[in-house]
Parts: sequence; C-alpha cells; structure tokens
Amino acid sequence: MANWKNFDELASYKALENGARVDLKEVMSGAGGAERVKKYSVPMAAGLAFNFAARAVDDTVLGELAKLAEEAELSEKFKELYEGAVINTGEKRLVLHHLCRGQLGQDVVADGVNKRAFYKEQQDKIAAFASKVHAGEITNAAGEKFTTVVQIGIGGSDLGPRAMYIALENWARRHGCFKMEAKFISNVDPDDASAVLQSIDVAHSIFVLVSKSGTTLETLTNESFVKNALKNAGLDPSRHMIAVTSETSPLAKSDDYLAAFFMDDYIGGRYSSTSAVGGAVLSLAFGPEVFAAFLDGAAAEDRNAAESDPLKNAAMLDALIGVYERNFLGCEATAVLPYSQALSRFPAHLQQLDMESNGKSVNRFGEPVDYVTGPIIFGEPGTNGQHSFYQLLHQGKTIVPLQFVGFRKSQIGNDVDIQGSTSQEKLCANVAAQIVAFACGKEDENLNKNFEGGRPSSIIIGEELTPEALGALLAHFENKVMFQGFIWNVNSFDQEGVQLGKVLAKRVLAHETDGALAVYSELLNV
Amino acid sequence: MANWKNFDELASYKALENGARVDLKEVMSGAGGAERVKKYSVPMAAGLAFNFAARAVDDTVLGELAKLAEEAELSEKFKELYEGAVINTGEKRLVLHHLCRGQLGQDVVADGVNKRAFYKEQQDKIAAFASKVHAGEITNAAGEKFTTVVQIGIGGSDLGPRAMYIALENWARRHGCFKMEAKFISNVDPDDASAVLQSIDVAHSIFVLVSKSGTTLETLTNESFVKNALKNAGLDPSRHMIAVTSETSPLAKSDDYLAAFFMDDYIGGRYSSTSAVGGAVLSLAFGPEVFAAFLDGAAAEDRNAAESDPLKNAAMLDALIGVYERNFLGCEATAVLPYSQALSRFPAHLQQLDMESNGKSVNRFGEPVDYVTGPIIFGEPGTNGQHSFYQLLHQGKTIVPLQFVGFRKSQIGNDVDIQGSTSQEKLCANVAAQIVAFACGKEDENLNKNFEGGRPSSIIIGEELTPEALGALLAHFENKVMFQGFIWNVNSFDQEGVQLGKVLAKRVLAHETDGALAVYSELLNV
Repeated sequence: MANWKNFDELASYKALENGARVDLKEVMSGAGGAERVKKYSVPMAAGLAFNFAARAVDDTVLGELAKLAEEAELSEKFKELYEGAVINTGEKRLVLHHLCRGQLGQDVVADGVNKRAFYKEQQDKIAAFASKVHAGEITNAAGEKFTTVVQIGIGGSDLGPRAMYIALENWARRHGCFKMEAKFISNVDPDDASAVLQSIDVAHSIFVLVSKSGTTLETLTNESFVKNALKNAGLDPSRHMIAVTSETSPLAKSDDYLAAFFMDDYIGGRYSSTSAVGGAVLSLAFGPEVFAAFLDGAAAEDRNAAESDPLKNAAMLDALIGVYERNFLGCEATAVLPYSQALSRFPAHLQQLDMESNGKSVNRFGEPVDYVTGPIIFGEPGTNGQHSFYQLLHQGKTIVPLQFVGFRKSQIGNDVDIQGSTSQEKLCANVAAQIVAFACGKEDENLNKNFEGGRPSSIIIGEELTPEALGALLAHFENKVMFQGFIWNVNSFDQEGVQLGKVLAKRVLAHETDGALAVYSELLNV
Repeated sequence: MANWKNFDELASYKALENGARVDLKEVMSGAGGAERVKKYSVPMAAGLAFNFAARAVDDTVLGELAKLAEEAELSEKFKELYEGAVINTGEKRLVLHHLCRGQLGQDVVADGVNKRAFYKEQQDKIAAFASKVHAGEITNAAGEKFTTVVQIGIGGSDLGPRAMYIALENWARRHGCFKMEAKFISNVDPDDASAVLQSIDVAHSIFVLVSKSGTTLETLTNESFVKNALKNAGLDPSRHMIAVTSETSPLAKSDDYLAAFFMDDYIGGRYSSTSAVGGAVLSLAFGPEVFAAFLDGAAAEDRNAAESDPLKNAAMLDALIGVYERNFLGCEATAVLPYSQALSRFPAHLQQLDMESNGKSVNRFGEPVDYVTGPIIFGEPGTNGQHSFYQLLHQGKTIVPLQFVGFRKSQIGNDVDIQGSTSQEKLCANVAAQIVAFACGKEDENLNKNFEGGRPSSIIIGEELTPEALGALLAHFENKVMFQGFIWNVNSFDQEGVQLGKVLAKRVLAHETDGALAVYSELLNV
C-alpha cells in the first residue's frame, strides 16, 4: 500500500522550496536554448511529443522533481488506482476510467463483475446500436433514418463529449466517416434547449439522455423539454431517446428509451469522455471505429503514464512541473492554448477536469492542507488568443504558465499561399514565435515596448489531430491532473463543492428562504 | 487637466491598504444580510441594476473608495477622454468609442471633422446598405438575396461582434427581426475558414472584411481563402464583400468591395463593438433598428458612467471594488458568470477587453509600477459552470471574485414546468443560491463538506436580455475597465504586448531564425 502524506511533509517539498530557481530567459537564449528544445522532450502516444524546454526547470530541478515523484510514490498510487483501490476516499469508490480504454494491471472485479469486461461490453453494445442506426435498421417511427444526435447532459456529460465532437467533426467529414451531426443541450436556461430544438429536425433526431444518477435536475428538466417538443410534433418520445446512466438509476430499465447504455459510480463525470457518456454520441456521430481509435490513443498514453521515470512519462512530468510552478513559483493560473480551431472547447473541458478535481482545500482524509492546490485554468485557441488576452500574458504583472498544443498539418487540408506561406505555416510559425517571445522577451528602452521574458510554457506537438491523437491528448491531461492530486494528497475524484448551491437552489424553489437569499430570490422574481 | 499619478502615490492607497477588512460571511448573514441586498444596489440603464451586496465592502470601505475616486479624479479623466484628450498616450491617440453611441460633452473635432457626426454618418450608411440588402436591392450577381453574412476579423473585430450576435440571435428570431444568419472566421488556422465555408451557401453570402489598418495578416489571409472559394464557385468576389476599415487603409477605396464603412484610430479593436466593426454585421443580421437600440442602451449607461458619485455609477463602483479586491485582498482573477446561455461568449469578449486593456506593467508614462494591475478574466455561463469549475471557486485555496449576470425572463419564452417550477425559475434560483453559498458558506464537521464562505460576488440583474440591456451591459464593462486603468495609471488603450510575437512569427516564415526558435520551427515543420 502506498503512503499518503501531505505534500509539505515530504523531504522534496523543502528541497524544492529552497532550491535555486532557473533563469528561463538565460537558459532559452542562444545555442543553449536550441539544445534544450532538442533535449527536453518526452515522446507520447499517437506520435505526439511533450516539449518542456520553455518551462522553468533544469537538470537539477528535474532531479528534485524525480525524487518527489518517487517520494510521493506516484507510480505506486497510479497502480493502486488502476488495479481497483478505493482512491476516491470521499465517496468510497474505485476510480476506473482507464479501464474504459484498456487494462494496465490485474483484473478489477467490483460488484461481482470484471469491470474491463463490463465497460467493453457497453462499448460493443453502443457500437452495434450505432451501426444499426447508420444502416437504417433503427429508425424513427416512419421508418426514416436519423440524421442528428442530440446529447442532453451537463458538466462532465457535456463539456468533454462536446469538446471531443468539435475536435473530430472536420476530421471525420474529410475522412468520410461523418455519420450524423451532433448537438448538445446542457444549461437549465430554457433558451438553450429552445435554440437547439429550433435548429434541428426533431423527426429525424435521436436524443442521448446522460445522467449517471438519473436525478440531475438540469438534465431531467431538459429531457422534459425535449419530450414536449417531440409530442408537439406528433412523435413518440420513446422512439427518439436513448439513455446513458448507471444500472441502478431509474432510467436504466425504463420503457421511455430505445436503449440504455451503462456507466457506473467508478467513472467520474469529468473523466467520462471515454466511457459510454462520450461513446454513445461520438459513435453515433462518427461511427464506432472512430471512437475505438480515440480509445486506442488514450490507452496508449495511459501505458506511458504507468512509466515510473518522469522523463519517459509526459503526464507525470507535466504534473510535477505544474506543481513546482504552483507551489514554489507562485503561479495561480495556467492557460491552455491549442493552436487548432478544432480544439476550441478543449480548454473548457480541461477547466472542469482540473479545477473540479484539484480545487480542494482538504486532503484525502478530510484535513485542511497548508499549501495551495489546483490552479485556475482558462484558454482559447491560438492565434485568436494572441489578439486578445496575450497582452497580459506578455506584459502583465502576473506570470501565467502556458500549455500550448500544435499540429504540423491541418485537419481539412484546404489552404492558401499568401505572402509566401500557407495558413498552416503561419499558424505553426505563430506558436513557435510565441514560445520564444514568452521565454526570452526582448529588451527595449521604451519600457512600454519591453518584454521581460521569463514566462514559462510547454508544447505538445503532433502531426495531425486524429482520433488517436485526441485520445492521447485527453489521457495526458487526465493523468496529469491525477498525478497532481496524488502530490497534493487531495481526492481528485469527488466534488463536494457543488452541493451547497444545489441545496440552496432547492430551498429557493420551495420558497423556504430568509435573509439575503429571500431578497435575491425576490429580485430575480423566483 | 487631470493629474495622472501612480495608484500607490495616492493617500487613499495607504488608507485602503491599512483599513479594516469586512467579514463577508458575517455581514451577509441574517437580517443584516437582507438589508445589504436591498441597499447595496445601483440602478443602471435599460432597467438593469448592479447589486454589490456580496462584495467584501461596507460603508467604511465604500467611503474610502469614494475618496479614491475623487483623489484619482476618475470623473475628470473620463470627461477629458470623451471630450477628446490624448488618453492613449502610447500611440498618441484620442479614445472615442463612446462617440459611436452618443455624446456626453462638447464636440470633438479631429482630423478636421466632428467625430460624433463621422461615426453617425457611418452608422447611417451601414443602415442604408443593410436595408437595401434586406429589401433585395443589393443582391448577388444573379439578382438573388443574400441570406448569410460572414465576418472576417480577429481579436476585437471578432470576439465582441460574435458575442453580441450570439447574445441577440434568439431575441431577434422571437421578435421577427432576424434577417440573416451570421458566421465568423477569425483564426489563421485554415480549418476555421474551411469549416465555415463548408457550412454556408457562398453564392448567397456577403462577407464583411474587418481590419482597421488593412494589414492584419490573419484577416487578409482569410480574405484570400474566401476569395478563392468564391472564384471556385464561379462567383465574383467583389460582388460578395464589404470592408470595415479606416479611411486611410488600402481597403478603403478598393474596387474589391461592394462598399466600405469606416472606423478610425480612435476606436480600439476591443472597444469597437458599437462602431462600424459591430455595426455592419449586426445591422445585416438583425436590421439597423436593433443595432440602434443596442447603441441606445450603451449611450444611456455611458451617461451613468459620467456621474461622479460612485454610488450612482455602477461602472465606477465596480471598478473601485475590483481594484480593492486585486490590490488589497490579493485576488489575481475574476470570473464572469452570466446565467444566460445567450451570453455564452460574453466572458471571452470581456477577457480580451479587460486583459488586453489593463494587463500592463508600466504606467501611461512608460514607467514601471510597483503594484499589481489587471486581473485574469475567465468564465462560462451558469448553470453549466456550476457542474464544472465552481468546485474550486467554492472550496479551493484561491479566492476568485465573481461577476454574475441574471435576467428574470428568458429570451425565447418557451418553458416547461417540472417539479413545480419552470426552467427559468430554476435558472434564477440557482444564481441566487450561488451568491449566498459563496458569501455565507455552510459549516460541516466533515471538512470535505465544509464551505468556508467569504467569497465575494456581485450581480447585474435585468428583466430580459434585450438589445438595450446588452448595450448597457457592454458599456458597463467597457467603462469599468477604463476606470480601473485610470486608477492603476496605465494606458488601457494600447497593446504593445502583442507585437513581439508578430515580429518573431514573420522571422520564422522568412526562415530567419536561430537558437531555440529555429528548433521549434523545425519541430513544427515550418
């Protein structure tokens, strides 16, 4: 059994706290900088590479971080996790999302079943269902093919699947595997469901209701919204809806759905993109083969994450450097900056993944910790962000570590040559330029035009954003967040911080309020 | 002439630094909390109200902040700005975006013309053009009506107009003034333009090329992309494109465009939503009357911003409290959380507006400042965010002040009653609940379920997100950022921090690199 200690109880904590800091501007300049870029790179799955040359570390700091990895028993903890220990201490649950895409260790048996077999069975059921929909064997009541799939879910049932759909939509169109358009309804704001319903042909739409518990208020509300719309169109809702839920939920055996596919309590919402939660909508949109390739990429990157040497394990290294920046360099936020329009909602997914997992103040035993934990995550795709918030990143008073992502090739492949270069070349030139501009800066006598540099970043570089590459990218960040949770000794897999708002909202709706809450409710007419 | 002093030279700085802090949890509890919510509210234009009861201030702090407003001469500085002083010291320019929607002081004459008349003239020209497009008097070469408008621009030419379009799309559909669908191409990633072009009928599309200088590389590249697509479809690009630019730009008098509408150097990109930059696309999409109503809302809120008493000036008060949180309560970030799906991209616009304006380290005279300036801005619509990053906001180690926005009514008006309440009621109940949950917390013996509270927020509440309300909301934040820039003594209207990246990217494309930049370029195949 691994030892779960608070970060500041470890010898490495003191060593890192007192260690010398790296002058990033200096080490990234000249021939030494070029050498760093060649050397400071960790290969990942699907042809990706994690290049950390522009993070504020050197061989000495890396040595200390490797000691931290060992002292914090990161590999042992990951092994316990994927072999079925109760890592989610708050809710007393196993944490098994890795089993959705592969198996790294011994069999995990829970609730009397082999969990890898269970998740695989759900994928196979989804694949068979999706293939029948595509083949016109499962149709609407009029025998017509479904053309649109609409996911109804919120949080982890929305952000991840939606980001993955957007990431692969153009790739799928180009490669002839685009089967159905997908839409997403998430917000309890009635305008969300209304606008989506206005934009689709409900008679040819199939809806995926996603709620693990079957009790998520937003999702059940939006389900009713959709059922009303179907009935108003003279359609039978049960011919247009499938459910993704747990076997014990009220939705599991209901006649209201064409089919039900299962996840379980061992898959957290924000870790559910590779489970049936992502599987149903992505398999319907792009075909089961594309979803399988996405899982393969994630599984391959999980295998890298099982390496104990951080220099062979990009997720672990990224986690270690991130903790170093957060706890010892004083950085409160991290920006995610994909140079790929297809990843436009990937930062929003990572925002949930990271902030909901590690935005905690107590350790896994429920005791307060005296060090800072998860950072604020935000980001937008480049080059858009360059014309927006990069001003603060370059010249503001706050240093924000940056996580770039870039690909050598575009997904669609159309391009134009303007002023001697293609758009894709301009895109790649910009991300290369930004890394160096942030790290090295540029002196100017006019301080308004001065760039002090020393602003750290790393980049994950790939050939093209394929399903495999996307799976690897997702697994990288999932595993990074997990390793950071291990270091901070927090439970990255519960989310008690979302509960109080739910309780108070119910009280407002029941008109059982007093004090400030009563006045706010009145001001908002509820 | 106003006196421009560094913030830390003011007597109020010391007073605020040394003043007593407010125990937000305490003051927001019980009957006192209810009183605060009733009292701490500033009326805004278009029926909005800025309620700051849950920010960490009391009458004493408000008194000090009012002194700061006076000492920093905020009203005088705003007056100088709207009467045409060279407030943008870096670029030696006037700052005149307020004149796009009204005139608060004496006439501003620059470049030999009355600038209010100039901006109004452009609006009128746009209105006439848009009306002819809607009436089928301006058509494609085949004499067919245009059905789609596509904005080509980046940064301020994209984020603001796009956010405003999304904000009003459903309102316009419901009120019978939806004229044309709008799309946006911004990123130099070729997949952005390709995907938009795949999604439209180019033969019936009119493109708005937006570049003040007429030299923005991304925008010119995407223009070529679009022209190629038009030519490939056998169409004449000059029959499908209009330009929004400055009169001195190469685009101004070109035969390549059906028409050109003008902005000038006194309108910063991020402040350009109410200029021709927003005017062309929004007037085409919704009709000139809707755009005029949007401007009216902004103008009315500008008039409020000219009030010298912060308790009658929501933007000034919001600015003062924000500075207090940033410089004395140690908050590095602020989250923007609209409980309205229509405002889904409003936070991205504010992220640019704020971070590009005040993400500075030197004052307006080019001297380094010793205090922190603009915060990190991020956000997503509620209730979506509740199922995502709110965990960190409630229970993380970092306190993030929150800016909520909520409306009593939805835009589309469709709704369902589930478990005794409508979706709109649930939405409003949630935002009310969140404010109180953040401020008051809830004690629990299990620290994992404990909410310490004391997390500040304010809310702007309105009846419905109409064009007027949107204009007022936009002006509020523009003016807030402006006042904060005055307090920090920075130039909020230049953006030298974006230059270095451009220079280095050009070098990469010209293959004139060495050191780290050469290796990154190689890794990215450029």
